[in-house]
Amino acid sequence: MHAITIFEPGGPEALVWDEVPDPVAGEGEVLVDVTASAVNRADVLQRQGFYNPPPGASPYPGLECSGRIAAVGPGVSGWAVGDEVCALLAGGGYAQKVVVPAGQLLPVPAGVDLVRAAALPEVACTVWSNVFMISHLRPGETLLVHGGSSGIGTMAIQLAKAVGARVAVTAGTKEKLERCAELGADILINYREQDFVAEVEEATAGAGADVVLDNMGAKYLDRNVRALAVNGRLAIIGMQGGVKGELNIGTLLQKRAAVTATSLRARPAEEKSAIVAAVREHVWPLIAGGRVRPVVDRELPMPRAAEAHRVVEESGHIGKVLLVAP
Amino acid sequence: MHAITIFEPGGPEALVWDEVPDPVAGEGEVLVDVTASAVNRADVLQRQGFYNPPPGASPYPGLECSGRIAAVGPGVSGWAVGDEVCALLAGGGYAQKVVVPAGQLLPVPAGVDLVRAAALPEVACTVWSNVFMISHLRPGETLLVHGGSSGIGTMAIQLAKAVGARVAVTAGTKEKLERCAELGADILINYREQDFVAEVEEATAGAGADVVLDNMGAKYLDRNVRALAVNGRLAIIGMQGGVKGELNIGTLLQKRAAVTATSLRARPAEEKSAIVAAVREHVWPLIAGGRVRPVVDRELPMPRAAEAHRVVEESGHIGKVLLVAP
Repeated sequence: MHAITIFEPGGPEALVWDEVPDPVAGEGEVLVDVTASAVNRADVLQRQGFYNPPPGASPYPGLECSGRIAAVGPGVSGWAVGDEVCALLAGGGYAQKVVVPAGQLLPVPAGVDLVRAAALPEVACTVWSNVFMISHLRPGETLLVHGGSSGIGTMAIQLAKAVGARVAVTAGTKEKLERCAELGADILINYREQDFVAEVEEATAGAGADVVLDNMGAKYLDRNVRALAVNGRLAIIGMQGGVKGELNIGTLLQKRAAVTATSLRARPAEEKSAIVAAVREHVWPLIAGGRVRPVVDRELPMPRAAEAHRVVEESGHIGKVLLVAP
Repeated sequence: MHAITIFEPGGPEALVWDEVPDPVAGEGEVLVDVTASAVNRADVLQRQGFYNPPPGASPYPGLECSGRIAAVGPGVSGWAVGDEVCALLAGGGYAQKVVVPAGQLLPVPAGVDLVRAAALPEVACTVWSNVFMISHLRPGETLLVHGGSSGIGTMAIQLAKAVGARVAVTAGTKEKLERCAELGADILINYREQDFVAEVEEATAGAGADVVLDNMGAKYLDRNVRALAVNGRLAIIGMQGGVKGELNIGTLLQKRAAVTATSLRARPAEEKSAIVAAVREHVWPLIAGGRVRPVVDRELPMPRAAEAHRVVEESGHIGKVLLVAP
């Protein structure tokens, strides 16, 4: 098969479409003929040499894919050759074939075509596990999502609205904020021009955000804590604004608030399976019912992964950038 | 009645036993003839002028008491005049009488005398709400308790052992650590001589503490996060080591860990009632069964509250310092 390989970490040009050995499904795994994968920030870090795949994972980038099952390993039940699926991966999605633990497979939801299904696993699992399983967003509460027009952001807006929460988003352009509004966002904040703490405070009559989904890390830590409501929960899933930040414990204590930080990729397979099962139970019906949909910025042929990375690095996209396998 | 009043914030001498008007039980409240109260760090801060009582609370210090019900206000069921009780208070325990929302009353547990019952409400509610309701300590997990010989510490050790967890404690003297060991602590760390991160790491074969109960705040923040296990939870309940600390979000994210900070006093009555109800259900049977007991350093007459505060400020005590009403 062919896969995107990283011979030498570096810029987008480090991504090379090359011939590599086919993977083989082991115990509890299936082999998927990949239809499409999607770009995640973690892929960019991996390409740059800052994020090595966890032990046992494929060396090729790609944390999610869609495709058809080509072979079923021993000990797998409930899945058959030919099934159309999408999957959460520990790596290897930028390839024509990939091996997946059966617990990380999802059926393609009704109404979604096989290519676009590749836009779903990472964002659905990340948002559901953080905003709902960890931070327990409830109907009537307010969610603040940073980067509202990203793949994560567009899924977070839709899921939060679907459960009856109010959604505030930050983004850097008017066009991005308009797309967030179309998806249901109630409070639109241009972070280049506005102070999100003040905007959230005003829009919630002083109460603050019950849950904040953050990809900035250190740079936003103090402001995120200030933006929280009493009993608020800050869920950090990225550190695009740095690793070490000042935490005002007095503010946190006054608000009886919580700060969590997680990543999906490093979790053991059984935790990923539990998240995937919860997504299948809670998110898939919302997609099948048309209330939540994948938001796709563009589809590019997988061998042109470098171009896809440039788009994501320049933040020129809205939603997911897909890579379609030849 | 008489109560400890604070005419002018300051040192222990600011605590003056003075005649004040009797309180009256309103809707949903009972009047308690106080038998004893106990000293909490928050009382010291209040005496110093750094911690004003929340709106509607008694102006006198004292966050817990034991005693007998003297009158029952309208709308209260399940409690009668003469009942022996202890209670979580928003203030006013350093007095001969205090008014308590009915949801914050607890019966005196079997086997505990009425004076010593005053040692229970704050520590039982603080430990149960933080270590169990928020941080979900599970059997087989490791709890690290800072200040293991404090009132909070002595209760945390006993409750964690009672549910089958392993307990590490820090304290500043050999004598205090020995008392922690008598109560069941497994891992004893003298913070003056040892690095608690290294000690916890060694004692858990590199895994770290699943839950940390912390009263130091900023000073210990970075080390507490380093001491956490994967999926660890840091519960901050005090800021004796400062308010603003550096949080390494990278470490937190790698561990998929959580930091929470709470106080009991500022919670609305319905949240306090929920905690008190959980304590009655889960902690009271352990006390009645003799597996968990109040740890009392000394009993002093309430008019000598200044002396009691000096003991607590010098950290010369093990367990709770009680104030017995005349």
